[in-house]
Amino acid sequence: MANHVFIAHSLDGYIADRSGGIDWLPQLPVPEGEPDVFAAFMQRMDAIVMGRRTFQTVLSFGQWPYTKPVYVLSRSMPPLSAEWADKAQLWGGEPARLLDQLKTLGYRELYIDGGQVVQYFLAHDWIDELTLTRVPILLGGGVPLFGALPWPLHFTHVSTQLLSGGTLSMSTYHRLR
Amino acid sequence: MANHVFIAHSLDGYIADRSGGIDWLPQLPVPEGEPDVFAAFMQRMDAIVMGRRTFQTVLSFGQWPYTKPVYVLSRSMPPLSAEWADKAQLWGGEPARLLDQLKTLGYRELYIDGGQVVQYFLAHDWIDELTLTRVPILLGGGVPLFGALPWPLHFTHVSTQLLSGGTLSMSTYHRLR
Repeated sequence: MANHVFIAHSLDGYIADRSGGIDWLPQLPVPEGEPDVFAAFMQRMDAIVMGRRTFQTVLSFGQWPYTKPVYVLSRSMPPLSAEWADKAQLWGGEPARLLDQLKTLGYRELYIDGGQVVQYFLAHDWIDELTLTRVPILLGGGVPLFGALPWPLHFTHVSTQLLSGGTLSMSTYHRLR
Repeated sequence: MANHVFIAHSLDGYIADRSGGIDWLPQLPVPEGEPDVFAAFMQRMDAIVMGRRTFQTVLSFGQWPYTKPVYVLSRSMPPLSAEWADKAQLWGGEPARLLDQLKTLGYRELYIDGGQVVQYFLAHDWIDELTLTRVPILLGGGVPLFGALPWPLHFTHVSTQLLSGGTLSMSTYHRLR
């Protein structure tokens, strides 16, 4: 099983500004003639693991954007109503047990999303691939993508491509084990 | 006058590890057939502004690497001996006054180096160009390149190139004013 991060951040490493806002992220439709890199990435994924905050942010978009099953890690969130059954499931237990269960279900490629969940997974060295899109802004404060680690993690650079007519660059890194 | 940053950092934004070490930076000679991007950058520069710590790190290399005049910002460093006159000068006053003086001397392109000095210049919105080389490692702690800012700073992505046989990627950004 491989765990993937696919996320955009400011040059100074924030995924949201001081008020949690993401309006500094380019909200452009994919320019004509450019590949939809997120759609291509999602097609490779079998399921999505995210935290409560990311789930609530996605809910605020008004339209459910995913076609793959979503697992929401939260010990505090109330159970999801039955109408969610085919979209998202709540997981209140240990993240490691969720990974065991997803493996048993035959899932191979997991999209790990949300700042706290990504930090937790990195601190446990459970991330195999990082795809980072750099937005050319210095926010100077906010919600950091990366957190403290017990030891350094080495990656190898796989590829870099320009997006949105060259205004963004996106790099993919694989964990060197 | 334009102020330039040219620096390598870990994927999580550190320029040195928790003990101030930089042995995780690739110390490779420039691979044959690849341009020496730092030499090309330095050729464009008229002078270098750095802090005391960076100056001391450079001294520890054993060989003075610069052919352009260096100005060391420090209020605490003892005066440099006469043998340094053609290499480095100490500036104990306000950084803004140093910029005035360098402008008067006819300098146009300044290389701003060192974590604290870069953060000070960014906090004053004095940086015009950022060239950032990303080393594919998560250090999980250390000396951060970027610090708090009073307001966000917007840049535009100019170019990205791969270095060291594709193991590193380097991007240049210009300040959007």
